[in-house]
Amino acid sequence: MSSPEQHTDVAIIGAGPVGLFAIFECGMLRMKCHVVDALDMVGGQCAALYPEKPIYDIPGYPSIDAADLIDRLSEQCASFNPVFHLGQQVVGLTRTADDRWLVETSTGTRINAAAVIVAAGVGAFGPNRPPLDGLEQFEGKSIHYLVRRRLDYAGKRVVIAGGGDSAVDWAISLAEVAAKIMVVHRRPKFRAAPESVARMDQLTKEGRIEMVVPYQLSGLEGSDGQLTGVRVATLDGEEKVLDADVLLPFFGLSMNLGPIAEWGLELERHHIKIEQSTCATSAPGIFAIGDIATYPGKLKLILTGFAEAASAAHSAFPLVHPGEVLHFEYSTTKGMPAGV
Amino acid sequence: MSSPEQHTDVAIIGAGPVGLFAIFECGMLRMKCHVVDALDMVGGQCAALYPEKPIYDIPGYPSIDAADLIDRLSEQCASFNPVFHLGQQVVGLTRTADDRWLVETSTGTRINAAAVIVAAGVGAFGPNRPPLDGLEQFEGKSIHYLVRRRLDYAGKRVVIAGGGDSAVDWAISLAEVAAKIMVVHRRPKFRAAPESVARMDQLTKEGRIEMVVPYQLSGLEGSDGQLTGVRVATLDGEEKVLDADVLLPFFGLSMNLGPIAEWGLELERHHIKIEQSTCATSAPGIFAIGDIATYPGKLKLILTGFAEAASAAHSAFPLVHPGEVLHFEYSTTKGMPAGV
Repeated sequence: MSSPEQHTDVAIIGAGPVGLFAIFECGMLRMKCHVVDALDMVGGQCAALYPEKPIYDIPGYPSIDAADLIDRLSEQCASFNPVFHLGQQVVGLTRTADDRWLVETSTGTRINAAAVIVAAGVGAFGPNRPPLDGLEQFEGKSIHYLVRRRLDYAGKRVVIAGGGDSAVDWAISLAEVAAKIMVVHRRPKFRAAPESVARMDQLTKEGRIEMVVPYQLSGLEGSDGQLTGVRVATLDGEEKVLDADVLLPFFGLSMNLGPIAEWGLELERHHIKIEQSTCATSAPGIFAIGDIATYPGKLKLILTGFAEAASAAHSAFPLVHPGEVLHFEYSTTKGMPAGV
Repeated sequence: MSSPEQHTDVAIIGAGPVGLFAIFECGMLRMKCHVVDALDMVGGQCAALYPEKPIYDIPGYPSIDAADLIDRLSEQCASFNPVFHLGQQVVGLTRTADDRWLVETSTGTRINAAAVIVAAGVGAFGPNRPPLDGLEQFEGKSIHYLVRRRLDYAGKRVVIAGGGDSAVDWAISLAEVAAKIMVVHRRPKFRAAPESVARMDQLTKEGRIEMVVPYQLSGLEGSDGQLTGVRVATLDGEEKVLDADVLLPFFGLSMNLGPIAEWGLELERHHIKIEQSTCATSAPGIFAIGDIATYPGKLKLILTGFAEAASAAHSAFPLVHPGEVLHFEYSTTKGMPAGV
């Protein structure tokens, strides 16, 4: 499993928006970065959960889609040549004899860094997956946990499972493009906005949505990743098959800190405690920023994470460049007219 | 001088980038703002000193010109209908009997607000102006303290005064478009980047720049705002006249907190001390953000000021909406799939 150690200045754990901006801030201070993320793409939740969602509180962007924000942040840090290790989780974080840190991942990558910045958001996260035999062979092909593009569902027979906002909202939205929408829920009551439920009921009356209640998912039919049917059953065991091309299970997200909880960092209710002025955790040389970091008065805003990225980079600087004075031009004074 | 009191939720002092973003953050929390600035435009230094300068450390903008950033921030806060009071300085800040604040300006505007956010940058700032008779009549017409557009100087006879980077860099740059460049400095030595000085010397040899050293400005000639000549003198009083259309004095900036220093707020080396976690100053209901605010570990970055704007808005909320629970959706959790 283990590979040779790769030496770098800063190891960043998490490639969401705040982790990406940390690359830029480190780069501005001449610090090279390696970045690890459990997902197989950069962008964190912005890319994986809601790429088309507009965000309104990024300074200077009256509105920007999450995926576009990630593209801009990727572009901004690209000139500093970060090395990404994607699709792998950090499983070990240990102090070396020379007061550096060794980061080890689930695929055997070993990164030796002077400082570590944890920008892991909510920790490892992912959809709650239904416990069905053979699920894996269909995932990413005909079973999806989020809708990336509505038009991917044009002309398809779609089974939506779940009883919350996502299930109801996507049933309504995809009814416009899909050949058929079937909504599977274990009881007739939906936990969604009343206007949305009323709209779904209306579409059901019009024959554009078929309600499959009270049923639960019980099995999958198909081959080579392509569903042909979804089996559903009542609590009494009465079973039937829905002919379908696609299944969208919306059973919410599971989140957990994962191995982060075992690194010995001081935690507070599933978050890493930091000193606000430095972003230092309880371990020397490990900093935490963004949603995973907490302190009194913390606001969980992307822009707060951006400012913390700047702070953590400055805090890491003396570990990477010991004894050097930090010559740093502030954005707000660069370009000011010089004196006589 | 005094007008009726205008009531609002939050008075923001300073309409630079951080002040503008504070309007947005207050608006997100249902707080209306009045904004005062000494300049006759929004944007602070970004607009007044270096509108064409690219800024590289705004998250999500690999590069954005200062003026464009101000445009985007103005657009972002516009829907919250801020009321601007421009071209006036705050001259009074007094506590009212009902624990609000009364902000009074140099032109007699009186704003009664539940909270005050000071986003005054470096305080009132402006160019160091040469002590010449009749200076005012030429300012903004044929005497300028910054170059907004190089092409404004095409075909002009330009006198540049000063010995720093600005004088040298603009002499080199404008030599490409101006009819004639004359550089007035009181001694032969320039305090600028050696490469730039060498380049200026080369252009002098080529006859494209005329060095007028050691001389100082001693008088102005012209009428109706239009210069015809600039008088210069040696320390011995030997005087001559340079035929010229334009004078650019680059004697640096003067900055001072101005009346801010007299509001009784606790200061630290010309900055307002705040509690980092709340942006609270030593006075109840007055918050400070951006470059004017200081605390241990403070970074003078625009993006740090943006995050402080969010923090100050949250801190002001209970003063504006007493007893109300703050229902606030975080940018990073909005749009997450709901549970089943």
